[in-house]
Amino acid sequence: MSRIFSNDGKSIMLALDGYYFSTKTAGIDQTIALLPQLIENGLDAVIVTYGMANLYTESFKNVGMVVRADLSTSVFDARIPQTTDILSVEDALKLGADSVISMTFPGADGETASHKMAWDLAKAADNWNVPYMCETLPYSYHVTSPESNQIETIAAAARIGTELGADIIKTRLTGNPADVKIIEAAKRPVLVLGGPKTDNILDYFNYVKHCMDVGAKGVAVGRNITLDENPIGVVAGLNRIIHQNGTAEEAYQSYQSSFALLKA
Amino acid sequence: MSRIFSNDGKSIMLALDGYYFSTKTAGIDQTIALLPQLIENGLDAVIVTYGMANLYTESFKNVGMVVRADLSTSVFDARIPQTTDILSVEDALKLGADSVISMTFPGADGETASHKMAWDLAKAADNWNVPYMCETLPYSYHVTSPESNQIETIAAAARIGTELGADIIKTRLTGNPADVKIIEAAKRPVLVLGGPKTDNILDYFNYVKHCMDVGAKGVAVGRNITLDENPIGVVAGLNRIIHQNGTAEEAYQSYQSSFALLKA
Amino acid sequence: MSRIFSNDGKSIMLALDGYYFSTKTAGIDQTIALLPQLIENGLDAVIVTYGMANLYTESFKNVGMVVRADLSTSVFDARIPQTTDILSVEDALKLGADSVISMTFPGADGETASHKMAWDLAKAADNWNVPYMCETLPYSYHVTSPESNQIETIAAAARIGTELGADIIKTRLTGNPADVKIIEAAKRPVLVLGGPKTDNILDYFNYVKHCMDVGAKGVAVGRNITLDENPIGVVAGLNRIIHQNGTAEEAYQSYQSSFALLKA
Amino acid sequence: MSRIFSNDGKSIMLALDGYYFSTKTAGIDQTIALLPQLIENGLDAVIVTYGMANLYTESFKNVGMVVRADLSTSVFDARIPQTTDILSVEDALKLGADSVISMTFPGADGETASHKMAWDLAKAADNWNVPYMCETLPYSYHVTSPESNQIETIAAAARIGTELGADIIKTRLTGNPADVKIIEAAKRPVLVLGGPKTDNILDYFNYVKHCMDVGAKGVAVGRNITLDENPIGVVAGLNRIIHQNGTAEEAYQSYQSSFALLKA
Amino acid sequence: MSRIFSNDGKSIMLALDGYYFSTKTAGIDQTIALLPQLIENGLDAVIVTYGMANLYTESFKNVGMVVRADLSTSVFDARIPQTTDILSVEDALKLGADSVISMTFPGADGETASHKMAWDLAKAADNWNVPYMCETLPYSYHVTSPESNQIETIAAAARIGTELGADIIKTRLTGNPADVKIIEAAKRPVLVLGGPKTDNILDYFNYVKHCMDVGAKGVAVGRNITLDENPIGVVAGLNRIIHQNGTAEEAYQSYQSSFALLKA
Repeated sequence: MSRIFSNDGKSIMLALDGYYFSTKTAGIDQTIALLPQLIENGLDAVIVTYGMANLYTESFKNVGMVVRADLSTSVFDARIPQTTDILSVEDALKLGADSVISMTFPGADGETASHKMAWDLAKAADNWNVPYMCETLPYSYHVTSPESNQIETIAAAARIGTELGADIIKTRLTGNPADVKIIEAAKRPVLVLGGPKTDNILDYFNYVKHCMDVGAKGVAVGRNITLDENPIGVVAGLNRIIHQNGTAEEAYQSYQSSFALLKA
Repeated sequence: MSRIFSNDGKSIMLALDGYYFSTKTAGIDQTIALLPQLIENGLDAVIVTYGMANLYTESFKNVGMVVRADLSTSVFDARIPQTTDILSVEDALKLGADSVISMTFPGADGETASHKMAWDLAKAADNWNVPYMCETLPYSYHVTSPESNQIETIAAAARIGTELGADIIKTRLTGNPADVKIIEAAKRPVLVLGGPKTDNILDYFNYVKHCMDVGAKGVAVGRNITLDENPIGVVAGLNRIIHQNGTAEEAYQSYQSSFALLKA
Repeated sequence: MSRIFSNDGKSIMLALDGYYFSTKTAGIDQTIALLPQLIENGLDAVIVTYGMANLYTESFKNVGMVVRADLSTSVFDARIPQTTDILSVEDALKLGADSVISMTFPGADGETASHKMAWDLAKAADNWNVPYMCETLPYSYHVTSPESNQIETIAAAARIGTELGADIIKTRLTGNPADVKIIEAAKRPVLVLGGPKTDNILDYFNYVKHCMDVGAKGVAVGRNITLDENPIGVVAGLNRIIHQNGTAEEAYQSYQSSFALLKA
Repeated sequence: MSRIFSNDGKSIMLALDGYYFSTKTAGIDQTIALLPQLIENGLDAVIVTYGMANLYTESFKNVGMVVRADLSTSVFDARIPQTTDILSVEDALKLGADSVISMTFPGADGETASHKMAWDLAKAADNWNVPYMCETLPYSYHVTSPESNQIETIAAAARIGTELGADIIKTRLTGNPADVKIIEAAKRPVLVLGGPKTDNILDYFNYVKHCMDVGAKGVAVGRNITLDENPIGVVAGLNRIIHQNGTAEEAYQSYQSSFALLKA
Repeated sequence: MSRIFSNDGKSIMLALDGYYFSTKTAGIDQTIALLPQLIENGLDAVIVTYGMANLYTESFKNVGMVVRADLSTSVFDARIPQTTDILSVEDALKLGADSVISMTFPGADGETASHKMAWDLAKAADNWNVPYMCETLPYSYHVTSPESNQIETIAAAARIGTELGADIIKTRLTGNPADVKIIEAAKRPVLVLGGPKTDNILDYFNYVKHCMDVGAKGVAVGRNITLDENPIGVVAGLNRIIHQNGTAEEAYQSYQSSFALLKA
């Protein structure tokens, strides 16, 4: 796991895998040009699709690469949590992957398929000695009901990922101090979803600080980096919290300093 | 079968496989720390998921281990008896399994799949010379209708397990003396489900005594151990009934003595 | 076919395969103890499940054994004619089978699956040089509508069995002299289903006599033997008709003589 | 193709494959006895099921044999155009087949399956160097709607057979001179379905003459031979039209002459 | 890709693959005779079905050949975007293919199947070192709703083709200058669908000019060539725009000159 986590066992991951799940992909291709500076400011790894890895092979040379093995089968309707396996672990390794990832949706209609996909990927990843990351999303991509956002539900989902053989769990938290139960249930390093783009970056830093406080090992974030007017600043801020144990305010200062440079 | 049954042909099994079927998993991880004392007090074997066997490999060294090969495909809704095969017998053996287990649900919608899973596991287990345990649950996990709790129905379900190649049958009984018909129909050693947590442990011991009286070879019990305030005492009590032919009252005394030690 | 038919090309078969299809299995296990006398009185072969062959291996040494390859997927509801393949021909041969059998249900919803199962078994049986028996039941296990009991329908179903590669056809007849059309259409030796238990054994012998008169080669009978108070007498009576060309009344005399011995 | 077509590139085929599709099979077994005379009067080939080829191996020695690879999965309801593959090309060759045939139903619900079956058979037949005949029936076995009987529709269906790899097309025509468009679209030799039994054999000969006039290479006919009181006469009549370029009236004279012999 | 694109990286493709998708196939067979002149006037490649490649092998010797691997499973109803894979890359190569093509329909019910088909073909094509062309059609063959014709939707669909491994994207454009976003999203050479037959060939040339202006690499056109009274003229006109950077008016002059020759 040393290729996608820092020596401190923590990780800042940039999710560039939107083309397999959504039409909301503005900013993804554009972020590629910024990769050297993002890495310089603390980025540990990227999560990419086959297409991204293929189109920008050179750009990902100096950063950990997690390749996504699953694809939405309803790309124009984000309410439908159905996926199919596309890449095998071998396919991912040929692209230079350091890890593979897939989602599973406990409680959703396609639960059987996404659980089996997770199990099969976990076994194949084990055979190739690469870590398998499981994104455990109860019921759907997003919070769809009070039940889908209960800590017990998210915790059970996270543990199912581990029970299916995951080495790393990617999940959402609720912001409540009891989120620690999710981390404990997971029994594996947890990376927290970046979630939808927020307007207030300080709010986001506060949320990330909370995540680290309850025991998360980092974040996997997409639009809060790619759609921000200052992607480098977001990474610099995350670095402050995640790798340097800083406060949200200190992260915000890093973000602002970076912004000043950008405008200068 | 000598690894999961005592020399007297009877067995006390602790079911630690809840993560594949339920969110009601409180106490499972915590029970691991008590394993040395549970074994000392008569525990013969554990039933575990892949994740449990993987997370606590060392803890299971000195106890028989039955690995579960099936997984619920509706983990958040215990009313839906649908499962899928996850582990192969080979997967289980790599974890150090002494036996494999799966459920089948005669009368349920997914009957074909769970019967075929049982048949295939029975054959594979035969090839590897490990016993296959079949949990035969008519219609669903729980008693869902008067029909699903009739002795004739439970007996037919148990026999189907044997007809599919099971070496051991795990089933529920009804508490009626005619439960002997279930044992006779099964034609294989029967272990009785622990069922839901009861408030009165003496009631549970009385039920277990009944089971042994009609010919069962032991119990496979989860929450009545893991959620009890005195797990060691429950095992000690079961040991009194199952391996020492004691009464329910004697079992209760063992439980209380153990409790006194615990509080001391 | 010499192992399951007598030298006269006729056969009395005892169906002991109820555990794969029904909860109405009373008497099956008990009949095992009578096998030596049943064989002595003319029994040629038994039809058994995997479980039966496995549990009573020794008992079947001196009688032809037909092993059932299919299993109901709705064991608690005899109205639903859906089956799945369980045993392969190789599985059956390892148990010592002299022949394999499966059902097909022309006109039922699962027609495709049971036809393909029949075809595949017929080919595999051919490769292993064992006869394949096809039980051809239009629409369902039982007569469910006037149409399902028409001679033309039963005849077409029987012929489909032959067209799928069957060496022996097991079917019901209607009791009408025109049943000869069913026998002619089949183009293969026909064994007649014993049907549900009748209260009057003479009625049953009359029916069997009719079957032989229209050209059947024998019967495959379950409950009219296993549930009778005098199983040995039923076989003795069938022997009179089937192998000795006797009348129904002579069969009834054999049954009564046997009964007198039993009571003595 | 020389085994199933005459040297003139034309063919009279007798369809004896009814047992896989229908209960209307009267006359099929009986026709076997007439085969030597049918062949003598011009019959080129037969279309048979597995069962027919198996039951009457000797009878088909001196005539081209096309073996059917598909089977109706709704044998008692001719309105449902659903079939499954049963025989492989290898299975057919072991029976002595000179060609294999299957149906496809463009526009029907089972279109995908029957197209794939056609493609796979065409490829396998190619590998074994035997011609594959595709019976292209728009929407269903019979004309079910005005649309299913339009020349454009039948032509498109015939071409799909060729596009799937067929060497010979079997289709119905409409009786309209524009049927030539169907023949042109097919790009392969076309044999015309005999259709349902007509009462007036001269009408049928007129239809066959029309088929040859628009470019067909012969007919594949079942009940108009097997159910006729004079099967030899029908073949003699077809021979007059198809191989000797005679008129319908001349065919009728041949039929009548043959009839006179029959009655004599 | 040098076999299906000119040295300038652009291509004029003639789509002759209608028999797999439609009854509107008038003119396809007739166009074969014109191929030498079409090639002389600038045609780079053809898109063909198995049947076409098979029937007209000689005719395609001197032109690039893209073989279609998928087939509609609803050939008589163009509103239903469901396809199945028929040819493998190996099948296509045996026919002499220089490239393979299939469609995918993001947003349609059969999305999973057509995405997987695309992925598998892309990988197989990679192994054989031939380019794979993906026709990315949001929701269906045609514009079925305002949403299915939005530039963002068409762009996301085109990118999905690339993310699935396509080397070339075939898509429709909207005629709006913002179509450049579709080209940019695709990240691969884009060929534009010819669309339905227009009455006014100048309109079509204007549309093609627009396509080239926003960055397309050429067109893949069927009926606007095959149904035109002057197919050679259409190709000559396209050549003017695509390979010679001409205007729509110049293309129209080429078309007219060719027409004059035709009438002369």
